[in-house]
Amino acid sequence: MTSKIRVAVAGYGNIGKYAVEAIREAPDMELAGVVRRKSSVNRVPAELAGISTVSDVKELGKVDVALLCGPTRSIPETAEQYLALGINTVDSFDIHGDALWNLRQQLDKAGKKHNTVSIVSAGWDPGSDSVVRTMMEALAPKGITYTNFGPGMSMGHTVAVKSKTGVRNALSMTIPAGTGVHRRMVYVELEPGVDFSGVEQAVKTDAYFAKDHTVVMQVDNVDALLDMGHGVLMERKGVSGVTQNQLFEFRMKINNPALTAQIMTACGRATMRRQPGAYTMPEVPVMDLLPGDRETLVKKLV
Amino acid sequence: MTSKIRVAVAGYGNIGKYAVEAIREAPDMELAGVVRRKSSVNRVPAELAGISTVSDVKELGKVDVALLCGPTRSIPETAEQYLALGINTVDSFDIHGDALWNLRQQLDKAGKKHNTVSIVSAGWDPGSDSVVRTMMEALAPKGITYTNFGPGMSMGHTVAVKSKTGVRNALSMTIPAGTGVHRRMVYVELEPGVDFSGVEQAVKTDAYFAKDHTVVMQVDNVDALLDMGHGVLMERKGVSGVTQNQLFEFRMKINNPALTAQIMTACGRATMRRQPGAYTMPEVPVMDLLPGDRETLVKKLV
Repeated sequence: MTSKIRVAVAGYGNIGKYAVEAIREAPDMELAGVVRRKSSVNRVPAELAGISTVSDVKELGKVDVALLCGPTRSIPETAEQYLALGINTVDSFDIHGDALWNLRQQLDKAGKKHNTVSIVSAGWDPGSDSVVRTMMEALAPKGITYTNFGPGMSMGHTVAVKSKTGVRNALSMTIPAGTGVHRRMVYVELEPGVDFSGVEQAVKTDAYFAKDHTVVMQVDNVDALLDMGHGVLMERKGVSGVTQNQLFEFRMKINNPALTAQIMTACGRATMRRQPGAYTMPEVPVMDLLPGDRETLVKKLV
Repeated sequence: MTSKIRVAVAGYGNIGKYAVEAIREAPDMELAGVVRRKSSVNRVPAELAGISTVSDVKELGKVDVALLCGPTRSIPETAEQYLALGINTVDSFDIHGDALWNLRQQLDKAGKKHNTVSIVSAGWDPGSDSVVRTMMEALAPKGITYTNFGPGMSMGHTVAVKSKTGVRNALSMTIPAGTGVHRRMVYVELEPGVDFSGVEQAVKTDAYFAKDHTVVMQVDNVDALLDMGHGVLMERKGVSGVTQNQLFEFRMKINNPALTAQIMTACGRATMRRQPGAYTMPEVPVMDLLPGDRETLVKKLV
C-alpha cells in the first residue's frame, strides 16, 4: 500500500471549489490545503472549515501536486514557481495554439531541471476533447473534425462584454450552429440611462465577436440567467486506409467547472506516473488518469 | 528525416487486406510484404501484384513491426514468435477480461526479453473504445458506462450458427437494445430438406445466444445480406467530484475491418515510441498514434 498523494489547490474561484470536492472524493488522494491570495486567506468560507488555508504553499508541508486554479494568464509564472519547489503541477490553461505550445516548452524545461512533472491545459477543451480529437484523427487520418461548443457560457466573451461602458452585468452564451460555427447570444444589464444601441454596436464590433453571428439582448437581471452547464459535440467524417465515410461523434452535457476540476484531479494523479517534463493530455496514457490496480483496470475497461 | 517504418502484414483475410491499404496510405511507413500460409503463398491475388508475399517473415529483410491479422486464437503463439525475431507486433485479439490480461502479461515478458514492443487488442473494442471508456471513467469516476454495439455482423456468433447441422450459410447481426443489452438477429440458409424449427432451437440454446433475445429467420441467400458496416454507442452518466448528471456519449458508424486495420496501423507506429514490453491501447498516449512533428500536432489538435 503506497501512501496517499498529497494535493494542494492553488486559487479558490469556481474551479478551485470543485477541485477541493474532487480531491476529497479521490480514494488515493489527501487534500494538503488551499493556497489563496494574502487578502483572502483570513476570510475562510464555511466549506473550508478544518482545511489548511494559506497564502504560501510552503506552509502546507509535503505537497506532491498542486492544481493551479487561478486565471490562465497567471499560469506560466505560477507553474514555474511550484515546479521549482519540487511540486508537480496541473493547470487548465485555455488558449490553444502557439501560447499552449510555448507553455508546454517552458514547463518542460522547468520540470526537467527540478525533477518535477507538469500536465498543461488539462481541462475539457483543451484537454479531454484533445484526446478524442487526436484519437479520431488516428482512426480516420483523412477528413474533417468539427468541434461544436455549447450551449454554454463563455467566460472570455462575457468578460469582454462586461468591460463595455454602461454595462452593469453581462452573459455571453455560445450556441452551436453546426460544422464548428457558433452564434453568440449576449445578454446585457445596463446602467440607468445608457443607450442600448450604442452598447450593441460596441459588442458586435469587438474582436471577440466581429467574426461570429452575434445577437445582443437587454435584460433586467443577468444573474437570473446564469447556469454552469456546458457541452460539446465533436464530429469527424473521414477515411480509414482508403475506406470513405467513417463516422465518429463525441458528445458531452456537463457542469463546466466541475468537469474541469475532475480532469485536473485525474491529471494530478497522472503526474505521479510520468518522467520529469511537461505534457499535454494526448501525450499521457488515459489509463494513468485512474486510481487502482492496473490488472483490475485492464480487465474491466479494455 | 528518419527512414520509414517497415511494416509486414501477417495473415491476409479481411483485416489483412485493409491493413495493406492503410500501410500504403501512411506517410511514414513502407509495406515490407505480406506473410501467408504456405498453401496460399503461390496464389497471389491481383491487388498484391508487386508486393512481396512470403510464408516466412525472415524472407522480407528488415521488418520493424508486424500487424498480426490472423485469428484471435493464433495470436499468443504468433506474437511471441515475432517478438523473439526482434519484430514489434500489433494484434486485435478480441476476447476481453482474463484472456486479454494473460496475453498482455505473456507478451510483456517476451518483449522485455527480446527488446521489442507489442500492443495487444488494438482494434475498436477492445481498442479505441477502451480508450474512451477509460477516459469517461476518469471524467466522472462514479456512474455506469453502457457500450451498445451494432447494428452489425458478429463474427463469433455467425461462426457458431454456421456450425449447426443443416446450416449452409448464416449471418448473426448484433442489434443494440439500449443500456448495453443486445438482440441477436440470425439469418440462416438451410440445406435442402432440413427442418427450420430444429435449427432455430439449436441456435437459441447455444451458449452464444442463450442469454440474449434471439430471433432466427430462414432466408434464401445469406450472401445478399452481408455488409461490413458496424457501429457503437457508448454512454456514461456519472459524477464529477460530487456533481451529478454529467453526460457523455461516443458514437461510431464504420466499416469494421477497415477501422480495425487502420487502428492496428496507427498502433504499429506507436510501438516504435515505447519501451520494451506489452501495452493495451489505454496504456499508450493517443498522440503516439499519429505521424508527424509533435509541435505541429500539439498546436493543431490540443
